[in-house]
Amino acid sequence: MNGAESLVTTLVGGGVDVCFTNPGTSEMHFVAALDRVDGMRSVLCLFEGVVSGAADGYWRMARRPAATLLHLGPGLGNAVANLHNAKKAHSGIVNIVGEHATFHIEHDAPLTADIEGIARPVSHWVHTSRDSTAVAEDGARAIAEAMAAPGRIATLILPGDTAWNAANGVAAVPGVAPPAKVDEEAVAAAADAAGEGCMLLLSGDALTERGLALAGAIAAKTGSSLLAQTSNAVLQRGAGRVPVGRVPFPVLQAVEQLKDMHTVVLVGAKAPVAFFGYPDRPSVVTSDDCEIRCLAAIEEDQLDALERLADRVGARAEDAPVQKPFRPDLPTGAFDLDKLAAILGNTIPENAICVDESVTTGRGFYPLTAGAPPHDWLQNMGGSIGYGGPCAVGAAIACPDRKVLAMIGDGSAMYTIQALWTMARENLDITVVIWANRTYQILKGELANVGAGNPGRKALDMLDIGRPDMNFVEMARGMGVEGERAEDCEGLIRALGRANSERGPYLIEAVL
Amino acid sequence: MNGAESLVTTLVGGGVDVCFTNPGTSEMHFVAALDRVDGMRSVLCLFEGVVSGAADGYWRMARRPAATLLHLGPGLGNAVANLHNAKKAHSGIVNIVGEHATFHIEHDAPLTADIEGIARPVSHWVHTSRDSTAVAEDGARAIAEAMAAPGRIATLILPGDTAWNAANGVAAVPGVAPPAKVDEEAVAAAADAAGEGCMLLLSGDALTERGLALAGAIAAKTGSSLLAQTSNAVLQRGAGRVPVGRVPFPVLQAVEQLKDMHTVVLVGAKAPVAFFGYPDRPSVVTSDDCEIRCLAAIEEDQLDALERLADRVGARAEDAPVQKPFRPDLPTGAFDLDKLAAILGNTIPENAICVDESVTTGRGFYPLTAGAPPHDWLQNMGGSIGYGGPCAVGAAIACPDRKVLAMIGDGSAMYTIQALWTMARENLDITVVIWANRTYQILKGELANVGAGNPGRKALDMLDIGRPDMNFVEMARGMGVEGERAEDCEGLIRALGRANSERGPYLIEAVL
Repeated sequence: MNGAESLVTTLVGGGVDVCFTNPGTSEMHFVAALDRVDGMRSVLCLFEGVVSGAADGYWRMARRPAATLLHLGPGLGNAVANLHNAKKAHSGIVNIVGEHATFHIEHDAPLTADIEGIARPVSHWVHTSRDSTAVAEDGARAIAEAMAAPGRIATLILPGDTAWNAANGVAAVPGVAPPAKVDEEAVAAAADAAGEGCMLLLSGDALTERGLALAGAIAAKTGSSLLAQTSNAVLQRGAGRVPVGRVPFPVLQAVEQLKDMHTVVLVGAKAPVAFFGYPDRPSVVTSDDCEIRCLAAIEEDQLDALERLADRVGARAEDAPVQKPFRPDLPTGAFDLDKLAAILGNTIPENAICVDESVTTGRGFYPLTAGAPPHDWLQNMGGSIGYGGPCAVGAAIACPDRKVLAMIGDGSAMYTIQALWTMARENLDITVVIWANRTYQILKGELANVGAGNPGRKALDMLDIGRPDMNFVEMARGMGVEGERAEDCEGLIRALGRANSERGPYLIEAVL
Repeated sequence: MNGAESLVTTLVGGGVDVCFTNPGTSEMHFVAALDRVDGMRSVLCLFEGVVSGAADGYWRMARRPAATLLHLGPGLGNAVANLHNAKKAHSGIVNIVGEHATFHIEHDAPLTADIEGIARPVSHWVHTSRDSTAVAEDGARAIAEAMAAPGRIATLILPGDTAWNAANGVAAVPGVAPPAKVDEEAVAAAADAAGEGCMLLLSGDALTERGLALAGAIAAKTGSSLLAQTSNAVLQRGAGRVPVGRVPFPVLQAVEQLKDMHTVVLVGAKAPVAFFGYPDRPSVVTSDDCEIRCLAAIEEDQLDALERLADRVGARAEDAPVQKPFRPDLPTGAFDLDKLAAILGNTIPENAICVDESVTTGRGFYPLTAGAPPHDWLQNMGGSIGYGGPCAVGAAIACPDRKVLAMIGDGSAMYTIQALWTMARENLDITVVIWANRTYQILKGELANVGAGNPGRKALDMLDIGRPDMNFVEMARGMGVEGERAEDCEGLIRALGRANSERGPYLIEAVL
């Protein structure tokens, strides 16, 4: 048994049985080990940003880590943006990066780079294996690091000779502590604050069906408000679940929504801040005299904390007011953003996984989709666009029996368009809807927000992604994914009907 | 005048008048400044790997730096792989990265990241502007750092408020020292070594027409051998120029070619080492008793050193033996690699810029293209595939009057396929030839080289990029670039004829 085989065996034994890969020479022994060790599903991606984004989506839905397999420093570099997003989403990933053989590093060959340096800003744990006999234990340690609450990026760097030299055997994953339970004082402080002017701000496990039921019951019982973070890793919503709004993205709207709160109680959420800093707007969107209390941080046991808070205030989850089923009527004619929301609200399949990278197009999707059958809503947590397609790949692999609906702005889609090929190869049940407004629409607003004035021709050229207009249906076909263009509501409804009636990847370009 | 305007004015004044951009909110003032400051050509790319690769290609052909404009840590992350390649190519780049406003960083918003940490492994110089009044001087310093011989990556991080607050004015670029001239001892030592069993190993400026003429004359006069590095930033070749081979990529071939050398004299080159380390092959490909002498390092004045060496040995550049014009006959029928080389040798346009990311397909292109009219040959210097399309973009912007021929393996092309869109938008005169062998062919060989044994089905699945086969013509059309597929020699010849007869981007997918 060589080091690579000991590692793959350790990974599979430790429950890491999916590997998103874009390997190179230094990872060939790992690849060869896939044939000699049973149980690892290896998924090839044509760009490393798809690898890391898929591992993010996989964790969110499976709640256990996938492995990656990346080629040296530059391969890791290509994965950085979606590792950043995954880190901010608290997704656990066993991030494996090949390195030159130990004896080769000193020669400064073309691919030599400071891999640990590239890894550190996007990892919670970075380790380079020194020896083929250490690789199994390093792998087991990486799994434990990745699974430590709430989920962490564990980067394991594997010099080639640690993979091809002889190993001692496999290693067992060290025990992973469950999320810590919060102190009773935190529960008491939250109970004291509960009532009018107090807001429970939710993210993490507080946005599971159970967490929302508890939070909803607490809010109903005490008169507190309920809100979710602007972006969340997974939000379970739809008919029969407790509905929850989100902190608005625009700063002034967020300030307005939070201005009457004397206390915000965080449950798996961070204190609400603006996405960007602006010349004349606050970074903190709560009012100056608003107190921030933390019931449970993201690494703590949020469901337990909510159970105890519910007990303390005498609320019962089954009494929480839930969303009534509601399918909006189907609109007709030319697109507008409300019509898009209505079409989604009417067509979202039961139990769908909705990956939302709609950016400006989707700002208003929530109200009209609230009453659709139960579904999960996944958002970009790190703000680096290009997460949607890859995240959908990982979610679809984690949940092969659920339809994934990936809604992606055209600008965002282009960063990781290669995800389409992996959807085709793995025949993943993903409907990709591209919102083709042919502009970085968000930046037109931001140009005004930062006080940069009216853009002239040269500035607008940097915000418009028309000239030439892209054709996503052709791009998808070039990567083996069928699809169609929708130019109006009827077209989009027809296309979604087709996508929802069949299994497999399908791309719809909605030309707005 | 705000900080952004002071910076853009400083850049233009300092000769940096091309900016490859993928901006976001934090860079909106820079974008707005493009309208208020004359002289900056801003080129939008849809992915940051295109930005950094284009800046690499631009430097190689213009020999002055372009600026980039990237959005925070993840945008920089997406640029890392081609910054790595550019760093290894010694390309000077003013790498500008937006950052949150200084007062916003502490709030750990979604896009907050350790930008300096991400930048350091791929930069020679990293600096964060602290104040809008410092931005102009910081920009001038960045230009000087980028231009310092032989060319460096200077990363300037620009918090939003340093762009929107008031500036003092513009700044002049500090004097940049010319490349140091080598000591006379280095010249004497090279002269002493010259003769049979001595090899001049060339890269950098030694591969310009003038450098090659000098090196060729020295070799002819002294009986020394002449060879170029395996990969080079720019190699000027073709009829009328001194022909030079390259160190073979396969380790054992390199060892064989170098085994009789008692001395290798480096001129802008590094001591030759294997691209990867293998279990049973050496990392250093020269023999144990081969002496390595350095005539001129990459940061020193290689042309001056060659002039002085030529003087010392009594060689004259005009006496160097040069390549005779030679166009191979056009082959017919099914493709093989020699036929591809012959087709290229027959059709490469005069003064073309050949960007070579052909990987395994192109290993044998050199002999049959040697006698084509004078042209430049650009290679991947950092080994991170995905450099070809972006490098072609930069080269085409630097040299609008020259045809760029980008030859790219299908696997490589997919990392930065978004480059096609920028080619269309800017109507760049680039012919992209995709070698579609539908596999990471190099890895099949490497699997054997590292002793990983015969691959089974699961390993082969990680090396094959068919299933589904891609269609690059459809992908290109989706990004506004016309093209066609070629299935045999006649088809490729016809397609190249069409591409060479017109100006603008054109993609040819050669299905091997």
